[in-house]
Amino acid sequence: MTTAITTTSTTELDALAAAAAAAAPVWRAADAATRASWLRAAADALDAHADELVEIADAETRLGATRLRGEVGRTTGQLRLFATVVEEGSYLELTVDDADASAAPPRPELRRMLVGVGPVAVFSASNFPFAFSVAGGDTASALAAGNPVIVKAHSGHPRLSERTAAIVAAALVDAGAPEGSLALVEGREAGNALVQHPVIQAAGFTGSLGGGRALFDLAAGRPDPIPFYGELGSVNPVVITPAAVAARGEALAQGLVGSFTLGVGQFCTKPGVVFVPDGAGFEDRVAGFAAGSSGGPLLTDRITAAFPSGIEHLEADASVTVVTHGLPAEPGSAQPVVLSTDAAAVASRPETLLEECFGPVTLLVRYSSDDELHAALEAVPGSLTATLHSEPSDDVAAVLEVLTRKAGRVLFAGWPTGVAVTWSQQHGGPWPATTSLHTSVGATAIRRFLRPVVFQDAPEALLPEVLRDASLATLPHRRNGVLHTGR
Amino acid sequence: MTTAITTTSTTELDALAAAAAAAAPVWRAADAATRASWLRAAADALDAHADELVEIADAETRLGATRLRGEVGRTTGQLRLFATVVEEGSYLELTVDDADASAAPPRPELRRMLVGVGPVAVFSASNFPFAFSVAGGDTASALAAGNPVIVKAHSGHPRLSERTAAIVAAALVDAGAPEGSLALVEGREAGNALVQHPVIQAAGFTGSLGGGRALFDLAAGRPDPIPFYGELGSVNPVVITPAAVAARGEALAQGLVGSFTLGVGQFCTKPGVVFVPDGAGFEDRVAGFAAGSSGGPLLTDRITAAFPSGIEHLEADASVTVVTHGLPAEPGSAQPVVLSTDAAAVASRPETLLEECFGPVTLLVRYSSDDELHAALEAVPGSLTATLHSEPSDDVAAVLEVLTRKAGRVLFAGWPTGVAVTWSQQHGGPWPATTSLHTSVGATAIRRFLRPVVFQDAPEALLPEVLRDASLATLPHRRNGVLHTGR
Repeated sequence: MTTAITTTSTTELDALAAAAAAAAPVWRAADAATRASWLRAAADALDAHADELVEIADAETRLGATRLRGEVGRTTGQLRLFATVVEEGSYLELTVDDADASAAPPRPELRRMLVGVGPVAVFSASNFPFAFSVAGGDTASALAAGNPVIVKAHSGHPRLSERTAAIVAAALVDAGAPEGSLALVEGREAGNALVQHPVIQAAGFTGSLGGGRALFDLAAGRPDPIPFYGELGSVNPVVITPAAVAARGEALAQGLVGSFTLGVGQFCTKPGVVFVPDGAGFEDRVAGFAAGSSGGPLLTDRITAAFPSGIEHLEADASVTVVTHGLPAEPGSAQPVVLSTDAAAVASRPETLLEECFGPVTLLVRYSSDDELHAALEAVPGSLTATLHSEPSDDVAAVLEVLTRKAGRVLFAGWPTGVAVTWSQQHGGPWPATTSLHTSVGATAIRRFLRPVVFQDAPEALLPEVLRDASLATLPHRRNGVLHTGR
Repeated sequence: MTTAITTTSTTELDALAAAAAAAAPVWRAADAATRASWLRAAADALDAHADELVEIADAETRLGATRLRGEVGRTTGQLRLFATVVEEGSYLELTVDDADASAAPPRPELRRMLVGVGPVAVFSASNFPFAFSVAGGDTASALAAGNPVIVKAHSGHPRLSERTAAIVAAALVDAGAPEGSLALVEGREAGNALVQHPVIQAAGFTGSLGGGRALFDLAAGRPDPIPFYGELGSVNPVVITPAAVAARGEALAQGLVGSFTLGVGQFCTKPGVVFVPDGAGFEDRVAGFAAGSSGGPLLTDRITAAFPSGIEHLEADASVTVVTHGLPAEPGSAQPVVLSTDAAAVASRPETLLEECFGPVTLLVRYSSDDELHAALEAVPGSLTATLHSEPSDDVAAVLEVLTRKAGRVLFAGWPTGVAVTWSQQHGGPWPATTSLHTSVGATAIRRFLRPVVFQDAPEALLPEVLRDASLATLPHRRNGVLHTGR
């Protein structure tokens, strides 16, 4: 299916930005119950239109109705989690220091909170047309923080983007939110203009390293730079110890194959590089499961057609061999493939061997000593996740130190595909995994779109409601250094 | 006094960076009591050498022994506050979600905390040779977060920088911290290399808009961009209503003169632009106090010599008149001056009239209607502070909305000079006040140098000590969405 490409003009963008700017003070001033009700109204509207949206999404992304229906649930659950976060109130970081006339110099009264930064730009992703797109995590957390959002539609699913934006924008207005709360722009030029627009105060992005870097540079190059929260790419290293192979090699091999082929290898948390002990027979076990694995069509014909060239790029390295291919692919589908190399090659040519490769492929890296393993791990770029499969008998302190430095989520069981949307989730890591010290999934993603303001010696009548003593009694806050739960 | 300019070579910087990289895991792993003891050891050493340090600082900055001694106290108090912050533990943002096998999909156990980002670069300021320099707030918060620091000395006080660094570095090592915990580099080229050095993971800066922007661009232009937390400049708007002039005009005029001439007008929170009601006689009252005010030498001969050109730049605007000068200046001193203009001029030429002007000068801006005031306020650049002097009879909602959007600290009494170092302080604001959504003063400054890591399904033995259940019992944390104080 092809859709005519729509491009938002500069004049249209200016109008949308003006509406967002006008909506911003309303969102910022909305109390917790109101803002939470707006988020839930958006979630309810998406659920009510799930059948229609899944059908459009499947036609545009080929991800399949089952997966896409699950993603709608994840997306509406995410909006509802942020409604809860807003109601709970910790995200405001309410902090009061009472005046102290006896201090030298005397201290004024200070009451601090976080407030929305203003209109936010969100660049949606190709591989999660719901959860990381128009009404995804960036949008949900930006709205929850009290900011209108302008989304740049992904060119891979324009009809879905338009329909989702229309449904959510209408639901917000119906629930009482101002016009201008959510808008959509389309086309690359409009996206570039969006991140540079004076009204926009922060941006969220999920996508490629190249595209993300270009937008990051535009955001940083503004006369008034703004924070750009991008998730750009991740190889998600896995380390398996000899003891783990001995104890549960078969289960590990099966789990790995399931994870790197999940969703045809198009998850940002796909395990792309797996450090395995040399001579332990683990490659053969992986080959056994991978040979029976199925691929499928990738998001678009162009991405599917490009998949083999990424493999060829890896195979061009003299150290790389093919462990196995998966089941033969239908025409227009990607066939799973497992490659292998050795730790010394990775340590010396990381820019060749450790580039993220979209699709059902993983690279096994043989190591024969701790020193080899550590040298190769140090060459791994910042990642969203790192996974360690070890046994209690292993001394993994040194490996764990490196993995914790390289990734935002460290797993000790299971596989990195699958990102629970919870209070503690961390979906972000050192460059190039993300461009900031924040997460794009989970409750604390809201912090990206908030800025602190402290009120000094304010008359109670001029304080925001949440900073008055009556509100503090029921909200989490810190007073004179002491944390109170508000319960 | 002149001091030969020392420049740290690339080879020297590499060695210092390697030492910082080696120290980083030790700082990151140090428990709260240990890290707090290191911060207090640094504070104690500075206090013990206060006489010597104040003498060097006075010779290099001409700020006077009394002010400088107070600044030493502020600096050591700041180090001790961060020791308390480390011990209290909220800064770790400990968050646990227990596993939930009944969820769809099943949820793993997640345990999240913040950890140090790694070695931090700190660029020290000219106007606070202690509190915003080698052992100032950026350094204290970076160390508290568990990171070694490399400071770029300010060229305005090289001997003080060297001596402070030597004292603190020795105190840290004597207290058990690793070599490489604190180092100093000198020279502009070394500073540029520092912010681009692969070992450096974040940078703090206090200084000029031009210098800060150049370093920000270097940080953002790295192959792996790093966060750059800069405080670049602020005009600190003040709004005075007609009712406030009527009720307490004399006290306000006296307070304003005291604030804009404090420290010879060299505070980053100096009230630089003051919106006053036209025809209320406030200018005459300010003139009365300002005519008797004294100036003094600015930080260096070069800055003192440049002061009149900043005034001339403002006076060149046809709307600007001189309200009064202060007492005649000694040779080599800056004479206070009060200028005035009108709100319409400010709204139409903000880039000329609202540029930060270092030294004892302030600009009174007459307004004759709310519309005029609002239009001019919208033109004010992001600032560290905004001050509103009003009376209960005033309707200030619209003014307050703008001021809260423009500044990180909003005052309702007193004057913005003077920044209490407390849990709630916010010293930061929209660009160009600062380059980030964070503060450089107060307890939460520590967040700038931390990154989140979540551990999924970790065996207890492999968890960091603070994330084990036994630690959580006594530390602030969130579990399954519920906040606990740990008391």
